[in-house]
Amino acid sequence: MIVIFSSQHEQHAPEYEFFRGERVPCFESPSRAVFVAKELTARGHSIHAPVADSRTILSQVHTQRYLDFLESSWSRWLAVDPANASTQPFPSVWPVRSLRSDIEPDNFIAQLGLYSMDNGSPMVAGTWVAAKAGADAAVSAAELLGGGEQAVFCATRPPGHHAGADFMGGYCFLNNAAVAAQALRHNGCDRVAILDVDYHHGNGTQSIFYDRSDVLFVSIHGDPRTEYPFYLGYADEQGEAEGEGFNLNIPMHAGTSSERWFDALEMACSRISQYRADALVVSLGLDTFEGDPISKFALRSDDFIKLGARLKRLGLPTLLILEGGYATATLGVNAANVVDAFDQT
Amino acid sequence: MIVIFSSQHEQHAPEYEFFRGERVPCFESPSRAVFVAKELTARGHSIHAPVADSRTILSQVHTQRYLDFLESSWSRWLAVDPANASTQPFPSVWPVRSLRSDIEPDNFIAQLGLYSMDNGSPMVAGTWVAAKAGADAAVSAAELLGGGEQAVFCATRPPGHHAGADFMGGYCFLNNAAVAAQALRHNGCDRVAILDVDYHHGNGTQSIFYDRSDVLFVSIHGDPRTEYPFYLGYADEQGEAEGEGFNLNIPMHAGTSSERWFDALEMACSRISQYRADALVVSLGLDTFEGDPISKFALRSDDFIKLGARLKRLGLPTLLILEGGYATATLGVNAANVVDAFDQT
Repeated sequence: MIVIFSSQHEQHAPEYEFFRGERVPCFESPSRAVFVAKELTARGHSIHAPVADSRTILSQVHTQRYLDFLESSWSRWLAVDPANASTQPFPSVWPVRSLRSDIEPDNFIAQLGLYSMDNGSPMVAGTWVAAKAGADAAVSAAELLGGGEQAVFCATRPPGHHAGADFMGGYCFLNNAAVAAQALRHNGCDRVAILDVDYHHGNGTQSIFYDRSDVLFVSIHGDPRTEYPFYLGYADEQGEAEGEGFNLNIPMHAGTSSERWFDALEMACSRISQYRADALVVSLGLDTFEGDPISKFALRSDDFIKLGARLKRLGLPTLLILEGGYATATLGVNAANVVDAFDQT
Repeated sequence: MIVIFSSQHEQHAPEYEFFRGERVPCFESPSRAVFVAKELTARGHSIHAPVADSRTILSQVHTQRYLDFLESSWSRWLAVDPANASTQPFPSVWPVRSLRSDIEPDNFIAQLGLYSMDNGSPMVAGTWVAAKAGADAAVSAAELLGGGEQAVFCATRPPGHHAGADFMGGYCFLNNAAVAAQALRHNGCDRVAILDVDYHHGNGTQSIFYDRSDVLFVSIHGDPRTEYPFYLGYADEQGEAEGEGFNLNIPMHAGTSSERWFDALEMACSRISQYRADALVVSLGLDTFEGDPISKFALRSDDFIKLGARLKRLGLPTLLILEGGYATATLGVNAANVVDAFDQT
């Protein structure tokens, strides 16, 4: 399988995040992509840099003012105070109910809060470049599928599926899976299915396509009653307007066994088959792994072979995109297990 | 002037808050109310404890699920882990656009985020008791006005005007000014005017009465483009539905002179006179003071005498409620200057 990987991901290397109120080193680290690329190379896959420019597709998935903010955010932060060069900005106030999102304040921290759903997306000077490279990878992969490739894997970070049309969240800035689906639509697919198997619900992806029937969103994830992102991912969210019936959430309680997880995967695959998609995008979070430090499912490394084989059986041109997964040293093996099983089935 | 003060405010004494990304001692400290009560006592005012129970009025101003959360929040926090007794909880994720506010997750931090607009409202074991005492003071003061008193001052903390119908924010948990206005309505006033002179826009109060014509909200405050709460307080917010035309925001740029500030006060008073209110509630923030550590207006202590005299000239039964003001040592003098000028004009 062709693997798309950009070394520019390294430019997004924040020092710390907040976890349970304390500053801790970032779980979402550059070494994640390094482990994945290394394992895929060792197993003989060819690694390509992204070649496409995602700007056109990005503006169909995200609002222009959010893209403008993100691209200029570091220079805005330095404009507040040049000494900020060595400081990570975090938002502290958010426009929830009865507060306005239609204005953009001049204050940088207020802008950051306007475009965030949490304080869990640490930002540094190279964040835009790294995130943009991920979106470029998604568009490049979609073009390869359009050219006849059966499957492509984007080994990108930072991840994307929590990013909404106009906000970052959960380590995510640009929604790579949404960009991939939109690029496939742009390249002639009438119906695109997205399967999100990350431990955390892909709230951004769901919300971007919630009123559309041309992109089906199906997700298996930790129950939002107890798991991040808490405020989306419930079973009663089934789409709205044109999108009614084109959103399927399968929340599973923390501690769910592999066996039950694969039962849910059958439900998800069944819905995707019924949809008769022209192509499949997989938000491939690997934090369903039993050794993940911040998640609570129980998949073993062998289970990712089973996952890859099941995805292959859907018989669709398939674009896999790396999302979460924080058991860093095992991440390469788990990702490569999906990819190899897909190739060899 | 009768002063209502409850020593229970002391039970809300968090150790620290986050300010510009760093943990700092709380600006909103118990010593604030102590300085105010001491100065008022020294000047001969009689201090009374609240006697009313605000529960009925509270449920007309806040949602029941928010009140339930707030009252039980500390026991919920301890239920997560008894060791939390010595830890302040802070939210980390918020239900902004496209995320749901209609569910209440089981996760405590997610509940805290659901009911917050920022991470600027540190909470401790005694927060509910202290906040409830403030609301009780507001209702007690409204009853005194109903009984014929011309003016009452509630020397309460924590403040209230940022708290919305179902969220805390900016040190505020229960909206004492909204409770006061609602209690005055309950006690027979047809029209109540609220004048908010705190440096920060009273977003909670505005939003609670935004669709009502029976409570006029008028505010003079730092321009939200650069000043907290950033997402509300703009001049184009004039009310909606029944409330159209009954909301007046006068944002002033940071650094505004006293002279300009009193020009704005004239505009505000003019609108209040025109409204022909039966009673006036004043959200008396004193962070317009030139020495305030987190605000940027330039009023001097003598200006608060001028303010008190101008309020008196409105000729309305008046309920003053302490909001912000963080130049702690001068807070008593500035508050007492308003009160004395009101009494002596």
